[in-house]
Amino acid sequence: MERTREMTSIGADWDKFYSAEISSKTPFFSRDGRLYDCLFAQQLNRELLERLFKTAGDLREITQKKEGADFVSSLLSHKRGMLYFVQPSTRTFLSFLNACHILGIKTSEIRDTSTSSEVKGETPEDTVRTFSSYVDLIIMRHPAPGFVEKTAWLMNRTGRPVPIINGGSGKDQHPTQALLDMYTLYRSFNGSVDGRKIVMVGDLKRGRTVRSLSYLMKNYKNISLAFVSPKEFKMEPDILEFLNKHSISFIETEDFGSVMGDADAIYMTRIQDEHDKTGESKKVDYSPFYFKKEHLKILKKNCVIMHPLPRRHEIEPAVDEDPRAMYWRQERNGMWARAALIAHIFGVDSKIR
Amino acid sequence: MERTREMTSIGADWDKFYSAEISSKTPFFSRDGRLYDCLFAQQLNRELLERLFKTAGDLREITQKKEGADFVSSLLSHKRGMLYFVQPSTRTFLSFLNACHILGIKTSEIRDTSTSSEVKGETPEDTVRTFSSYVDLIIMRHPAPGFVEKTAWLMNRTGRPVPIINGGSGKDQHPTQALLDMYTLYRSFNGSVDGRKIVMVGDLKRGRTVRSLSYLMKNYKNISLAFVSPKEFKMEPDILEFLNKHSISFIETEDFGSVMGDADAIYMTRIQDEHDKTGESKKVDYSPFYFKKEHLKILKKNCVIMHPLPRRHEIEPAVDEDPRAMYWRQERNGMWARAALIAHIFGVDSKIR
Amino acid sequence: MERTREMTSIGADWDKFYSAEISSKTPFFSRDGRLYDCLFAQQLNRELLERLFKTAGDLREITQKKEGADFVSSLLSHKRGMLYFVQPSTRTFLSFLNACHILGIKTSEIRDTSTSSEVKGETPEDTVRTFSSYVDLIIMRHPAPGFVEKTAWLMNRTGRPVPIINGGSGKDQHPTQALLDMYTLYRSFNGSVDGRKIVMVGDLKRGRTVRSLSYLMKNYKNISLAFVSPKEFKMEPDILEFLNKHSISFIETEDFGSVMGDADAIYMTRIQDEHDKTGESKKVDYSPFYFKKEHLKILKKNCVIMHPLPRRHEIEPAVDEDPRAMYWRQERNGMWARAALIAHIFGVDSKIR
Repeated sequence: MERTREMTSIGADWDKFYSAEISSKTPFFSRDGRLYDCLFAQQLNRELLERLFKTAGDLREITQKKEGADFVSSLLSHKRGMLYFVQPSTRTFLSFLNACHILGIKTSEIRDTSTSSEVKGETPEDTVRTFSSYVDLIIMRHPAPGFVEKTAWLMNRTGRPVPIINGGSGKDQHPTQALLDMYTLYRSFNGSVDGRKIVMVGDLKRGRTVRSLSYLMKNYKNISLAFVSPKEFKMEPDILEFLNKHSISFIETEDFGSVMGDADAIYMTRIQDEHDKTGESKKVDYSPFYFKKEHLKILKKNCVIMHPLPRRHEIEPAVDEDPRAMYWRQERNGMWARAALIAHIFGVDSKIR
Repeated sequence: MERTREMTSIGADWDKFYSAEISSKTPFFSRDGRLYDCLFAQQLNRELLERLFKTAGDLREITQKKEGADFVSSLLSHKRGMLYFVQPSTRTFLSFLNACHILGIKTSEIRDTSTSSEVKGETPEDTVRTFSSYVDLIIMRHPAPGFVEKTAWLMNRTGRPVPIINGGSGKDQHPTQALLDMYTLYRSFNGSVDGRKIVMVGDLKRGRTVRSLSYLMKNYKNISLAFVSPKEFKMEPDILEFLNKHSISFIETEDFGSVMGDADAIYMTRIQDEHDKTGESKKVDYSPFYFKKEHLKILKKNCVIMHPLPRRHEIEPAVDEDPRAMYWRQERNGMWARAALIAHIFGVDSKIR
Repeated sequence: MERTREMTSIGADWDKFYSAEISSKTPFFSRDGRLYDCLFAQQLNRELLERLFKTAGDLREITQKKEGADFVSSLLSHKRGMLYFVQPSTRTFLSFLNACHILGIKTSEIRDTSTSSEVKGETPEDTVRTFSSYVDLIIMRHPAPGFVEKTAWLMNRTGRPVPIINGGSGKDQHPTQALLDMYTLYRSFNGSVDGRKIVMVGDLKRGRTVRSLSYLMKNYKNISLAFVSPKEFKMEPDILEFLNKHSISFIETEDFGSVMGDADAIYMTRIQDEHDKTGESKKVDYSPFYFKKEHLKILKKNCVIMHPLPRRHEIEPAVDEDPRAMYWRQERNGMWARAALIAHIFGVDSKIR
């Protein structure tokens, strides 16, 4: 697992490293043709995505039977993982924790920094390095942008690095959410994502998931996107530029009804009012961007309805019983996709089928 | 594990379902002749109780040896369980957690809702459904009456239900406490519970355990109960009616000494002053309802002293060293009885002996 | 595992027992020639230390390979342990937790008493006894001096004791910290500790680790100690007396530079200002007691730099990359030494090599 001299030199100065293009630093976080650290959605290219999706599918099939589940949980039974989640997030936490358990990894949890030595004046970098002494993997969620990446960078410069998986860092990156969303599309479409029409609805300006998912679209051919949002919360220009650059077609509209009937997937999101500065969310009528039971009859037979959850009122609970409601399975997909990612990082995915 | 059409129709409307007689809804929470969800003490009939007690006894015997313990912990090694305890209760929590570990179940814990997405406006039902995506079993303690039952009801209506075990819901139900109390009596009496004299002492009005235990008495023959309490905290009329209806003899008294000498079991409880409305507990002299070291000489040789714990002053610590003090073993019995219940729900109890 | 009558009689009265000489009570905490409870650094004699170091070394070697790790984690797979940490300490907690996981012990955690029944008026002794019902081992950290020892004393007087390991009790004892520090010296010197020159630096008055380590020096021959501290925080007279009694040579100085060049090990500590009464720490210039990058060129080639961590400014981060910086490995050593201790207590150390 040696990195090349070139990568080591790239990595010598954190500030320089941090401000570099992501594409230039991804080699630093890879080993032997596999991810070593998973930090950015940009690390997920089509080949890797489909490899992970294959593994996730195999995992869920094998574990249907007790013998298979016991086999899978023997794969990494010699590893210890830590979930270092100092930002509230029960669902991502549980998803990763159970992904670890599926693979037999023994887990430790840090869910609150108030009990840690950080109170005694230790730097966060020292704290994480200490914790890394005890384990073989750290899955980390942290409110400060760049902190997870810095941890991975630091670890890679020590004599005993451990892989770091980003479970959400600030507002910037949450790559396994993008992974599970993409996996849900892939699985819902039986593997044929190319050519699909995907509608994203809601607070597109501040929603991290719709941004990441848009980035991942460059891995597929002939995708059409429709962005449906109130004018106050339109998709940001950087994403639109990215789509133009990669010749991915998209439209923007406030008229949800106009794009429903044609959609292969509808990705609903909630209003992100925790990012409000002056209560701007309250001034917007969000109800035209709700999915209601009555809309079900407009949808194509195989269209899927997704939502990263938690939801508020964006999707009427009566929709839950429709077979096209995919959001609960989407959560479950997350656990399997994360298990596949961990298996990949440790190179045991090849042992599964 | 299919439910019949009849049960599905019973279950269509929550409010209607909730207000129905417990006996009419227990089939909805059963499968293949076994409990699927364990929600009510009323689900515990004599046949089931004795099946669980047999399993509990077998479990503790087999696990005495390492080979046996390793065998038992292979039984459910392919399962993942969640302890969703949003009401403080360390002892019940630990008892269930270790019961899971005995059977090899990998566990996740939710012990505080403040870190969950509930803060983002999600309904509790959505939260629980999300959590259920990752696991095969939920053990739940919740302060709101009916919430655990509603969760089980909801789960049973989805395409991917998981069993729900009630670890205490509001003031209404705590079936595994009743189970472990009954198991302690059964074990202390070498299986012959019929005909025993059982004395319950303390705050009988507000103590959930003495109420549940009284209900379970209908499973046994010729039981005599004595209720010893200050007049302010007498057993409630609904229980007395129930006992009359099932021809279970009982007396009520304020004179503890008058019933001690004849008792086969003395069930002590603490004053439940957390339910006080106007400090009524402080007005009562509780000391006549304490069990003191000097009382030991009055007791029958094989009488057992029980307490659901925690205790305050109801039992003098010097009593602990007497072999008739059963309350520590009672706690340990709880772990084994819960392990037996979980083994039963997953149908692996037949593999134990 | 029977104790002798003599020890039982020694143990009959807690206050008397507590005030006795440690050497007179250690038999009470031993069984079959092994530690049963690990409470005091004084229990760690040279024979035991070297036995534990051998086990720790074997454990880390065997677990390098998956087969070895799986073998080691089968040794205590039939045991359940509890970490009862009611005083903040994430690193000691994680170190013990992962030590348990290495050996296959299933773990429960109590990290906060606010959720426990202590709030309902239960005594701490009852609480611990309850928790002990569910497990085979308790690792305990508690702020009250003597509480861990009292728990072990109480447990040993019940019919179902479980081993107690002290993970830090008040300011008095933290034996596994002493164990890991000694292990780090042993490992750094390839087993030859006799005759070494060891420099301890910083707040020696209030640092628990340097005090314990000084005690352990009596197990080795021809040790020379140098105590480097500001005059306000000199090593306490009781330790100096102990060293004199055991003919261990030492000097005291404020001039760090004068002892650096000769040292085989430098043990750095931070200022313990959490014990300040009147802000006395702020009046001291601590900077002469810092280890800086420029000092590296003064050190002997094989000198090791240790620190119990967390650090503040005592060691410049640039020192971390020097091979003589041992503090990160020291933490990792702690996990292995603790695993060795647990293996010893359960008598499975003989199965490892």
